[in-house]
Amino acid sequence: MILLWQFCSTKKTTMTKITIAKGDGIGPEIMNATLNILKAAGAQLEFDEIAIGEKVYLSGNPSGISAEDWATIRRNKIFLKGPITTPQGGGYKSLNVSTRKFLGLFANVRPCQSLHPFVTTKHPDMNVVIIRENEEDLYAGIEHQQTDEVVQCLKLISRPGCEKIIRYAFEYARQQQRKKVSCFTKDNIMKQTDGLFHKIFKEIGAEYPEIAQDHWIIDIGAAKVADSPELFDVIVLPNLYGDILSDIAAEITGSVGLAGSSNIGEECAMFEAIHGSAPNIANTNTANPSGLLQGALLMLTHIGQTKVAENIQNAWLKTLEDGIHTQDIYNTHTSKQLVGTQEFAEAVIQRLGLQPQTLPCANYNNAAAIQIPKYIRKTPRLKELAGVDLFVHWPESDPELLAKKIQELEAEDISLTLITNRGIKVWPEGFKETFCTDHWRCRFKTRSGANMNKADIIQLLSLAHQKNIDIIKTENLYTFDGQAAYSLGQGQ
Amino acid sequence: MILLWQFCSTKKTTMTKITIAKGDGIGPEIMNATLNILKAAGAQLEFDEIAIGEKVYLSGNPSGISAEDWATIRRNKIFLKGPITTPQGGGYKSLNVSTRKFLGLFANVRPCQSLHPFVTTKHPDMNVVIIRENEEDLYAGIEHQQTDEVVQCLKLISRPGCEKIIRYAFEYARQQQRKKVSCFTKDNIMKQTDGLFHKIFKEIGAEYPEIAQDHWIIDIGAAKVADSPELFDVIVLPNLYGDILSDIAAEITGSVGLAGSSNIGEECAMFEAIHGSAPNIANTNTANPSGLLQGALLMLTHIGQTKVAENIQNAWLKTLEDGIHTQDIYNTHTSKQLVGTQEFAEAVIQRLGLQPQTLPCANYNNAAAIQIPKYIRKTPRLKELAGVDLFVHWPESDPELLAKKIQELEAEDISLTLITNRGIKVWPEGFKETFCTDHWRCRFKTRSGANMNKADIIQLLSLAHQKNIDIIKTENLYTFDGQAAYSLGQGQ
Repeated sequence: MILLWQFCSTKKTTMTKITIAKGDGIGPEIMNATLNILKAAGAQLEFDEIAIGEKVYLSGNPSGISAEDWATIRRNKIFLKGPITTPQGGGYKSLNVSTRKFLGLFANVRPCQSLHPFVTTKHPDMNVVIIRENEEDLYAGIEHQQTDEVVQCLKLISRPGCEKIIRYAFEYARQQQRKKVSCFTKDNIMKQTDGLFHKIFKEIGAEYPEIAQDHWIIDIGAAKVADSPELFDVIVLPNLYGDILSDIAAEITGSVGLAGSSNIGEECAMFEAIHGSAPNIANTNTANPSGLLQGALLMLTHIGQTKVAENIQNAWLKTLEDGIHTQDIYNTHTSKQLVGTQEFAEAVIQRLGLQPQTLPCANYNNAAAIQIPKYIRKTPRLKELAGVDLFVHWPESDPELLAKKIQELEAEDISLTLITNRGIKVWPEGFKETFCTDHWRCRFKTRSGANMNKADIIQLLSLAHQKNIDIIKTENLYTFDGQAAYSLGQGQ
Repeated sequence: MILLWQFCSTKKTTMTKITIAKGDGIGPEIMNATLNILKAAGAQLEFDEIAIGEKVYLSGNPSGISAEDWATIRRNKIFLKGPITTPQGGGYKSLNVSTRKFLGLFANVRPCQSLHPFVTTKHPDMNVVIIRENEEDLYAGIEHQQTDEVVQCLKLISRPGCEKIIRYAFEYARQQQRKKVSCFTKDNIMKQTDGLFHKIFKEIGAEYPEIAQDHWIIDIGAAKVADSPELFDVIVLPNLYGDILSDIAAEITGSVGLAGSSNIGEECAMFEAIHGSAPNIANTNTANPSGLLQGALLMLTHIGQTKVAENIQNAWLKTLEDGIHTQDIYNTHTSKQLVGTQEFAEAVIQRLGLQPQTLPCANYNNAAAIQIPKYIRKTPRLKELAGVDLFVHWPESDPELLAKKIQELEAEDISLTLITNRGIKVWPEGFKETFCTDHWRCRFKTRSGANMNKADIIQLLSLAHQKNIDIIKTENLYTFDGQAAYSLGQGQ
């Protein structure tokens, strides 16, 4: 990446080889339209084309891509991807998720700008960029069912994951001369996971004093974005919240057909439209190629061909201003001519060199790939075992009975201190109104306050096995540098 | 609850004793205004008043409520709660979360209706009811940090939790003559947890053929609600999504000051405004009492005093139509008189018996508490141990090295089959581009395909302890009736 970026910034006219995949449904049409525009504007690109998506899945490859084509993507590092169709059922895996995670594409960047009055929107002054963490959170997809009634998914939030995405957001804001970065979490409830994201936001934010910063609880923040998006500038947030918020932001600009996004890693990057493959209008020359075109412009700025990107963006804005619209944004007030996919691309090409009259001109501030430093492991803190949570499958309902049974596992210095059901304390001193499932968490600690030993956990498990107590999972309790790093029971 | 409900439906004029708490900030003003209206309208209520919130917290009680006042709430079962202030820092626990969970208040119901043109909104035709699961999901608040880099929160979704909320939503729709129930999940990613919610929605929905039903992926669904809420009627969804969506829905009606919500359990119920205690405008007689009043009307319908509730609601709508507005909704187009909290309440009282002219009249369809059957445990399925995931804290980076180390734990029929990092497969055959944290999941299964035994897990843990491999947690892998009930690794 570093090589490529130096290369491009000193010799802008040298060809960059990228990988393209036309994808399914409307993919080939919008890709051809986009490539025609890039070519006409003088983008310095060479292409390796690969096949991904429906045909590959249905040929018997559950990952939707061949090993050879993976190798091409990894070699070229820059990937412009058309929308694909994942067949329903049959265990086909999402190529989007695996591409992001295999290639370490940690940042999803989605600019959402309204184009009032040319595209109908309730939010004329909106210009927001959503920067979403792209690899972790509940999207790790680690799920287990261990009792008849309860299913679990792990939400994982990591320090490197947070540092990388938050630093990327601030570097992006600095490069693009944005005024404010807002962080959204639910750290009033998830004090450790979302709390880590918020804490690192404050840590890294301190290095960018020229940029305004604020934090919103996700529920209220999402409500504000939905109602008054003009209050926001750059928003950085964990994966799941980012998934929801970036779709809200795109939709309320007036059309999801107008937005592209980039997926950025330390070495590789992927660029795409945010919409799907729309098989119902495939091969009708009616799709709007703007989403993929916007993805391609993010790509051009990423590889340093910024002036080409600005030229195309200005011609695209002028085309929209001139009322030359595809059917998805056609309206009786500002549209003048209903055009198809290829005709829209030709109208953009005809306007290369022109600038919009009403909408602001594109200015990418000589953008290029944003370099963030490689994550450096921190010095380990002193980690000590403070206890263990044993999770028990027990299909009865009286916590007092369970406590008696579980207390049989106690050793001289090891005792049961707490039982919760779905997080709420039910022993000691629970409420009879509390609804209990068959999934119980039993917390053991030492009576003396001394640390526990791994052998103590093994001893507890062995005894439980002997006594037919069905332990389905364990969670060790740790302190780091003496600070407890596990939550209390609710009501404890 | 059943006793109470029969009681009220046969003898509507008998007093119901409820618990009230005025709360903090604007709480006392809006509670007094609300109670004045209830009294003037002839609500048959007696009150036990309790103290909760800031003063109780600061007096040294970290739960914000005394044991005696808990007893009052549990005895009366119906609780009308003013907004409270939880002091920052100091380990004070959210009284809202503990009340919901201790009392088993599984359903949060929030009607969000726009009052166009009297309250400014971008969505004049909106009339949505959000029914949010209120006890489980990530709000179990079970968090553990077990390595330097990674923090975990457990998302728990249960069959009884899903059944109760989904049945409640359909019963609500039937009682209120709503046309459609929509379910929102992210089950394309979380196939087991969100998949369970979606599956049960289809199961229970089949019992309500007269009600239209659809399912949306939460990102696209939330975007549609934000842009076009008029497309939706009743929406049922898991806790976290419900938290986000219910705030979006309330905000885009034009004011969060106008909405109340109910929290319904099998025995107890709590009613409140959705907004907070707004200490900045406390004691200024400027707050809008409408949110708490709406909560109180939900309470009146819950206890069968439906006609009183309709009478108040019609007077309230007429007051808004007459342009008698508090400052939060005052606007130059439709407001005629800016009033304070008490004056607004008096204006409503003066209009008791009148009906709105433009807005639709209230009709609660003789609503009363919705009874759903008690959850009955299903017949257990055959649960068999298929393997185990051992999670390892290992602060290095080469998965091949880790695999070699972990393979030392293998036994005759037990072998390492997979290593993932944040869910993505890194061994065998990982990609060097995949970013790895210090938190590794190592999956063991039998070579022969036979079931594993708990003793095998204990043996693995003992050997790991001997070899200084730092196992921080375990997740057992189960099949139920022969079906695998655990996710594959991403890219597996």
